[in-house]
Amino acid sequence: MREEFRADLHIVSQLLVDMAEAIRVAMQNATRALLRADREAAETVIARDAEIDLIYRQVEERVADLLARQAPVATDLRTVITALHIAADLERMGDLAEHVAKTALRRHPSPAVPAELRGVFGQMAAVADRIAEKIAGVLSKPDADLAAELDRDDDAMDDLHRDLFAVLLSDDWPYGMETGIDGALLGRFYERYADHAVNAGRHVVYLITGETAAATTTDTGPVE
Amino acid sequence: MREEFRADLHIVSQLLVDMAEAIRVAMQNATRALLRADREAAETVIARDAEIDLIYRQVEERVADLLARQAPVATDLRTVITALHIAADLERMGDLAEHVAKTALRRHPSPAVPAELRGVFGQMAAVADRIAEKIAGVLSKPDADLAAELDRDDDAMDDLHRDLFAVLLSDDWPYGMETGIDGALLGRFYERYADHAVNAGRHVVYLITGETAAATTTDTGPVE
Repeated sequence: MREEFRADLHIVSQLLVDMAEAIRVAMQNATRALLRADREAAETVIARDAEIDLIYRQVEERVADLLARQAPVATDLRTVITALHIAADLERMGDLAEHVAKTALRRHPSPAVPAELRGVFGQMAAVADRIAEKIAGVLSKPDADLAAELDRDDDAMDDLHRDLFAVLLSDDWPYGMETGIDGALLGRFYERYADHAVNAGRHVVYLITGETAAATTTDTGPVE
Repeated sequence: MREEFRADLHIVSQLLVDMAEAIRVAMQNATRALLRADREAAETVIARDAEIDLIYRQVEERVADLLARQAPVATDLRTVITALHIAADLERMGDLAEHVAKTALRRHPSPAVPAELRGVFGQMAAVADRIAEKIAGVLSKPDADLAAELDRDDDAMDDLHRDLFAVLLSDDWPYGMETGIDGALLGRFYERYADHAVNAGRHVVYLITGETAAATTTDTGPVE
């Protein structure tokens, strides 16, 4: 029974790693679509979101199956429920990458982001990518120190989000309202992507250390 | 055993009704804060979000306890897992009401929403309130027809969201970028509130009819 439980849990973990890798590639492609007005990259993100949703449903089915067959209790039960939380955060990160891609597509062939904002979005994308890499890493090989780094990465994202708003709200912003609003919403998508990653990371830490993870998604952007 | 399961499930359902009522009041107060620059209403929303999060944790604890003691299988198991999804959607709706309240507070004593937008936000708030009322209703007394109405309410919200953007992007928008961006983000908060309600409603329908609910949160605003 115990061995079966471990084997089942390993399959769930592997699905979470697959999801984490998929949402990392999704944001890479979304950023390419955004900064290079790359239509194909945007369409790839949108097409593949269904695959991410499919893995999410597989996690849920595997977990339901595991609960039914193994009836875990105590720590084992909490571990299984925590896996559901991580999957929900990762699924939402995939949606956010899709929002970035759709924004790029709506403006295509014009770039959705003007030259003045390309630097800050490039940096936000770099932080998002680092974060997604760490999530995939800690899910493959639990590491509480690495997971804890996610909080610092999220602070870096919040700083960039603030920089973005400083540009959008400066007196010499040369573009119109639509570009400004797109910039604000895109900033929010990257910032929320990081928030969900931090949340997923806290759940991973909980799995490793047994310390209570935050029950809710923190949402710490300067625009709230 | 069966009776115990029913009794446990009833407690979980009651907690969900409590959450639904709390997130309805939260958005009512957030709207009051927004449209009347009512500082006290905003602070109430922020203070009470912790109570909503607490009920969410109680749902999770009750569910974990129920799984451990009753080890439900098949439909019973799916019912219990669905309750977790509904709770997650409701918790997020509470966060969105809090975002509205915080935006109002940041601009206080100025109104965050200028006169030109008060009409459309009043209508969005009315749809949000109708939606929250229905969620609380179907959770207290399952009714698939009432839950299905949520899709139409969500369409109404999307239409209002489009109207909002038409005002924000019109050539004669007399306000600056900050007010425009606040308007866009506030619109997104109301629209996402409705999306999560629809999602929760689908889960309720699934509980009633056994028909598959959407596994992921639909996010159907015109700005994506």
